[in-house]
Amino acid sequence: MTEDTPTRYKLVLEYDGTSFCGWQRQRDHPSVQETLENALFALTGESPVVAASGRTDSGVHALGQVVSFDLLRSFPVYKLRDGLNFHLRRSSEDGAAICVTAAAAVHPDFHARFSATQREYLYRIVNRRAHLVFDRHRAWLVPQPLDATAMHDAAQVLVGQHDFSSFRAAECQARSPVKTLDSLSVQRVGEEVIIEVKARSFLHHQVRNIVGTLKTVGLGKWTVGDVKRVLAARDRRAGGMTAPAAGLYFVQTRYDGVKGVPSGPK
Amino acid sequence: MTEDTPTRYKLVLEYDGTSFCGWQRQRDHPSVQETLENALFALTGESPVVAASGRTDSGVHALGQVVSFDLLRSFPVYKLRDGLNFHLRRSSEDGAAICVTAAAAVHPDFHARFSATQREYLYRIVNRRAHLVFDRHRAWLVPQPLDATAMHDAAQVLVGQHDFSSFRAAECQARSPVKTLDSLSVQRVGEEVIIEVKARSFLHHQVRNIVGTLKTVGLGKWTVGDVKRVLAARDRRAGGMTAPAAGLYFVQTRYDGVKGVPSGPK
Repeated sequence: MTEDTPTRYKLVLEYDGTSFCGWQRQRDHPSVQETLENALFALTGESPVVAASGRTDSGVHALGQVVSFDLLRSFPVYKLRDGLNFHLRRSSEDGAAICVTAAAAVHPDFHARFSATQREYLYRIVNRRAHLVFDRHRAWLVPQPLDATAMHDAAQVLVGQHDFSSFRAAECQARSPVKTLDSLSVQRVGEEVIIEVKARSFLHHQVRNIVGTLKTVGLGKWTVGDVKRVLAARDRRAGGMTAPAAGLYFVQTRYDGVKGVPSGPK
Repeated sequence: MTEDTPTRYKLVLEYDGTSFCGWQRQRDHPSVQETLENALFALTGESPVVAASGRTDSGVHALGQVVSFDLLRSFPVYKLRDGLNFHLRRSSEDGAAICVTAAAAVHPDFHARFSATQREYLYRIVNRRAHLVFDRHRAWLVPQPLDATAMHDAAQVLVGQHDFSSFRAAECQARSPVKTLDSLSVQRVGEEVIIEVKARSFLHHQVRNIVGTLKTVGLGKWTVGDVKRVLAARDRRAGGMTAPAAGLYFVQTRYDGVKGVPSGPK
């Protein structure tokens, strides 16, 4: 059933990042990319290069990571989804840490990374004394009381286009430190403090560095003025700590106006 | 600091039941009771008998299990909570599967089990094709579409006082099969179907047997009339399957009107 023209596919993935070195393939460490590519080979006999919307770090989770790749043999999308899930479940102990929640055939111009118009991340803080049980490896435990309203107010300083050098990891490979945050919100839901952020693209560790700074505000140690000072410093040393990877979730990607792909999330 | 009159304490516990044989102590299997009693001994040097509001089965979780016990030496409650959590975290690999979310000194008449006026359970079904990632061991995966509205409507047949023999495990030790459900609701929240049930007390496996029957309704195989027939049969063989333990959560207990204990949940 081999065809001359390859078909481009788009998948939406959910994964628990705890046991992976991150999205990207690395020698000697299991990655999400390698695990998925192995399942793709087991199902199709092909070894396409898989592109991801966001290259999550070690320990970072995904609720709606988007990937794209080409296959020479075309597959009904439900077979691709269910077949990959079959191989992901049995591929390894870590296999069940990844699943495909949706699959689609898309226009050959679509690229999970380069076609993205907006990415959304979620950061979960559990704000209580007791250690984590259900959220172990899945949230940041902060025992001291946090003022989520103060965090939200201070967060608004960062919305819009800014030089985010103060929130950028040393190893960041982006050409420019200038990014545009479309929105950044902080809200308390019971004992959780939930941070949601949207932008076309992010610097390396940008979300976790923003969360670390907002936590300092939540503790009452910094004010809106301090966040302005940190931003203006354009120096990572001026910012707060880097929040742990375990609280970070890649939620979804928008591809507005991309040919052959419905607009809206995922 | 030993005193003549022991002090009665009440704790609220959260636990992941996956790796336990259930609440109750068993030879050769780690139980929640044993793990907690070991932490109590490590902290206080005392070995009180610990009573629990609900004796959850193997694999069943708790968000707000309530326990009570006496200590000869009195403890500030925050030290009891934080000290027990310290020992629970380090007691074993499974230690971090339990935490104390609240502690209080209570009237000596208070008993976690016998003083309870209402218990609440939650059952989580994830209704999707893809296998579970974040909810592995924490929900029941049902891949076929479920009609949550039909499930809710059929559930109302079971509210009130009935002979629940059709929903009772063979090994149930209750003297009577007659129980009163205060409420039973089913609602869809995204890809989840959430079942909440409240009663003064339950038969063994009653909630899981109710969920198994409601699932058959959700699939469209049974109607409200079938649930009436199952209830009237007073025979376990007439009912649906027993839903898996992993989806069940003991949420909270009410102790209305008990001396020395504030009314309301927990």
